[in-house]
Amino acid sequence: MKQDGPLSHLIRQLSILPGLGPRSARRAALTLITKKDDMMFPLIKALQEAADQIKTCPVCGALDDTSPCRICNDPSRDKGLICVVATLTDLWAIERAGGFRGIYHVLGGVLSALDGIGPDNLNLSDLQSRISDAPPREVILALPATVDGQSTAHVVMDILGENASIKVTRLAHGMPIGGELDYLDDGTILTAFQARG
Amino acid sequence: MKQDGPLSHLIRQLSILPGLGPRSARRAALTLITKKDDMMFPLIKALQEAADQIKTCPVCGALDDTSPCRICNDPSRDKGLICVVATLTDLWAIERAGGFRGIYHVLGGVLSALDGIGPDNLNLSDLQSRISDAPPREVILALPATVDGQSTAHVVMDILGENASIKVTRLAHGMPIGGELDYLDDGTILTAFQARG
Repeated sequence: MKQDGPLSHLIRQLSILPGLGPRSARRAALTLITKKDDMMFPLIKALQEAADQIKTCPVCGALDDTSPCRICNDPSRDKGLICVVATLTDLWAIERAGGFRGIYHVLGGVLSALDGIGPDNLNLSDLQSRISDAPPREVILALPATVDGQSTAHVVMDILGENASIKVTRLAHGMPIGGELDYLDDGTILTAFQARG
Repeated sequence: MKQDGPLSHLIRQLSILPGLGPRSARRAALTLITKKDDMMFPLIKALQEAADQIKTCPVCGALDDTSPCRICNDPSRDKGLICVVATLTDLWAIERAGGFRGIYHVLGGVLSALDGIGPDNLNLSDLQSRISDAPPREVILALPATVDGQSTAHVVMDILGENASIKVTRLAHGMPIGGELDYLDDGTILTAFQARG
């Protein structure tokens, strides 16, 4: 295989996708080329359509092919309840779980000294103006239970703290449903004990 | 996310790639959309170029952007030595290992009753006509050490058996370099003992 040929070029482009290493990129490229009509052309079309049609929602920062996004546009969603998430995949996880009928604010990541992500790299100023334009009843911080996630939560709390009428809550910590004690880390067990009720 | 929108369409197309499940397809789609210039447009271009330029080599069945492929065209490769492999990824593995200076024949898979792959689905008739047009000195069967791989090897041997002047060899079985006995399966240990020397 020529190192600068179209095949190795495709493999290189595939291998930088999250979740695909060099080996699976080679297998994926081979599958795509041998199944042009079934897989390659539909993938090219899907990528092209997504590139053309997907926009960032100016209200919440999510991605959708309508602007504002479907959730912000949905009259049945409770606009007084804003759930702050780090990424769109977190938003999707909450939507898959069902049950939440409010709206979202997608920060686009969490603060990370290691990756050089500071408050300016996150969708925080939009949150600030959104909150002051139309103060919600409650803001739920659904940020990762990691050090970076929690320091991000603190920054969001600082922004929200300026408006005393807003109730700020966080997701509960504890045992996952179906979890077994023997497989849980000490931090989760301790938190579950402290928050028992 | 709308179930028939461009985003879920892209995720579905990505998730049927080998090595990508639903979760990694979601992450990959999100990464592509947020990094359009760095990742999505180059990927579309690479796919389009591969779809346009990559052809199946009429001699050996490999894929390349030249026809016949670079290996078949290379005057420094020994045309009297044909290595039969199941897939192009196996060919690449041998090329990465270096050392083999002959040419290849890619069958495009192995016989599999489970997947409904019979002798007619493999690149066998081309091998037969290739062998009778220009008989090589030696054919090396580099097929997987699985039941399906070995039954494929038998079918290839039957085809080659018609020409008695061709020497047919197989890759040796034994301990992998760096392998530890305690981690090897019984079959490999027994084979390594029988083939000791």
